[in-house]
Amino acid sequence: MPSVNNTHRISTTDLDTPPRLLLGPGPSNAHPRVLRALSNRQVGHLDPAFLAIMGEVQELLRYAWQTDNPVTVPVSGTGSAAMEAAVANTVERGDSVVIGVNGYFGERLVDMATRYGAEVHRLDRAWGEAFSFDEISEAVERHKPRVLLLVHAETSTGARQPLEGVSELCREHDCLLLIDTVTSLGGVPLFLDEWGVDVAYSGTQKCLSCPPGLGPLTLGPRAVERLAARKTKVPNWYLDMSLVGQYWGKERTYHHTAPINMNYGLREALRLVAEEGLEARWERHARNARLLWDGLGEMGLACHVDEAIRLPSLTTIRVPDGVDAAAVSRELMARYNIEMAGGLGELKGKVWRVGLMGFNSREENVRLLLSALAEVL
Amino acid sequence: MPSVNNTHRISTTDLDTPPRLLLGPGPSNAHPRVLRALSNRQVGHLDPAFLAIMGEVQELLRYAWQTDNPVTVPVSGTGSAAMEAAVANTVERGDSVVIGVNGYFGERLVDMATRYGAEVHRLDRAWGEAFSFDEISEAVERHKPRVLLLVHAETSTGARQPLEGVSELCREHDCLLLIDTVTSLGGVPLFLDEWGVDVAYSGTQKCLSCPPGLGPLTLGPRAVERLAARKTKVPNWYLDMSLVGQYWGKERTYHHTAPINMNYGLREALRLVAEEGLEARWERHARNARLLWDGLGEMGLACHVDEAIRLPSLTTIRVPDGVDAAAVSRELMARYNIEMAGGLGELKGKVWRVGLMGFNSREENVRLLLSALAEVL
Repeated sequence: MPSVNNTHRISTTDLDTPPRLLLGPGPSNAHPRVLRALSNRQVGHLDPAFLAIMGEVQELLRYAWQTDNPVTVPVSGTGSAAMEAAVANTVERGDSVVIGVNGYFGERLVDMATRYGAEVHRLDRAWGEAFSFDEISEAVERHKPRVLLLVHAETSTGARQPLEGVSELCREHDCLLLIDTVTSLGGVPLFLDEWGVDVAYSGTQKCLSCPPGLGPLTLGPRAVERLAARKTKVPNWYLDMSLVGQYWGKERTYHHTAPINMNYGLREALRLVAEEGLEARWERHARNARLLWDGLGEMGLACHVDEAIRLPSLTTIRVPDGVDAAAVSRELMARYNIEMAGGLGELKGKVWRVGLMGFNSREENVRLLLSALAEVL
Repeated sequence: MPSVNNTHRISTTDLDTPPRLLLGPGPSNAHPRVLRALSNRQVGHLDPAFLAIMGEVQELLRYAWQTDNPVTVPVSGTGSAAMEAAVANTVERGDSVVIGVNGYFGERLVDMATRYGAEVHRLDRAWGEAFSFDEISEAVERHKPRVLLLVHAETSTGARQPLEGVSELCREHDCLLLIDTVTSLGGVPLFLDEWGVDVAYSGTQKCLSCPPGLGPLTLGPRAVERLAARKTKVPNWYLDMSLVGQYWGKERTYHHTAPINMNYGLREALRLVAEEGLEARWERHARNARLLWDGLGEMGLACHVDEAIRLPSLTTIRVPDGVDAAAVSRELMARYNIEMAGGLGELKGKVWRVGLMGFNSREENVRLLLSALAEVL
């Protein structure tokens, strides 16, 4: 046997992370009850005790999303994995798809759908705007897509995509409606079944106040039918919902080992949603966002997104002329331990992104941020 | 706005999981220090404090694997995601690959490689056996594979695949050597660089005693070169190491939000490996396995795998004639809170699988299991 090389055997200290207030686009701070749940002792991934927990997580996800979909599960990866699962399971090579691109995550959907061999038709808009029904309708009429992919809550811009009438349009054209709810689930009104959404995904680290590591995904009956009728296997083993679904469904067939402790955390996060109630939670997010927007206005700062489609969970603030956006963020972190992010892509250097998500959507955080921002500017 | 449907708003109790001793094939019980680390307060995924943690995790993974590979990262999914990342990043459509199939995870590699369009050549052996160098050599000579995939530690059988000479063979044929170390990392001698391994992956929930949720992956220089020279994009966005590597590398480009708290846990788990030292840790696993094997022998129970290639981390015990394997496992759990698993595939109903992994590889666990098993049988 060779002798052991100790070059990389570094000596480290006990973990001691700084007390950040995470007011960027996510992760937001997890609720303390969620953090405690994470460290609960483990059981096996086929233990009856864990199967019961899985059932509770699924049921509470259905509540949060307002859906009855049997296939509602946390994918064993982050929100991006759930996004890829949504694409991989609904798109087949050669399928026509229409993707609304008005921010970073629309671009990512294009990248993913292209990798899965879709014939991608982009519907473009400036970052921070939303698509009108007529624009969507025209694109669907023209390209006859198998799937229409829209970002309900664009984390890169803070814009909300209205969905009125879109489901009827999709059904008329035998097209699935797939939406990104990463920054809306648990913070912004969502009625998946009422709205006729066929596929939705999310992350845990935004308005659910759970650390990143799981990606909620739900497939409605039309999506499940489409999956069953595929001509080819899903070209992604880990995210193949025809296999994953057998573990989360009645069969309980082993696929991969579920992230036990992350599921403990998500269960607690979803319990908090159920305890508070969706109406109260949405109202709280709206109230604190309003407080932020008013305060920014008083400081002479403008929001990038039109108020009619502005997300309460994520606000993009225009950087005033002559101000170094990155320097302000650095200063907020150095002096106040507050994380506030900059813009991505088209909005790089032009906006700051402020998240008031889940546990972090509280009046004291708004007051502190406004005060710190005034000091720094 | 529609009114909220409260059908799925179930009321649940505080999490209270039973005190299981997880002596199956994984997850094993996490070390208490790891569980505590999980609930540390969060920082952002681009926070300098988190970047430092990432660096420590990478460095300690290199130690555990005995490699200098710069591209050594925890994939943001379970071990199965790391397995798929290993395949997706090294295999291109039409590539010839040889896969050793002597257990469940060899079969899974075949499924994955097929989905990525490889021309798969199976090398088959009964479950519980290992391949001889001559068999491997003949297959490589005949099929001229671009990648040779072997399972170093078969979690379904408890067999270890010897690798002497295999790396030289692969280099001669411009073939990458890819191995599964899910049940060996942190418990069984591994010298990736010394052995000339190009790609390896693992899970966190076995001998590292961290909950499931991350999948360590390492790519050597030849694998990185292969990735850079691909004719096509990796057909999996989430696991594309040319993107993921830019977040874990110097660029720090955002790809997806890393599972912050799971990385806290893995860091602590790897610290425990470094504190104990690999030699002592491997010796401990060997010593406790020996104790188990001797005890089983005294009870008249036979191990399924030949001692020369038997893994200390996972033992398959032959179920005696006339004994109902599942009933014994159920009884162990009901009476003693001990999880012990049954066989998979070819070995279903024929063996029990006992893991003595990481924190769980302790003499008291062996004594308890032997005593409980004697009671139940």
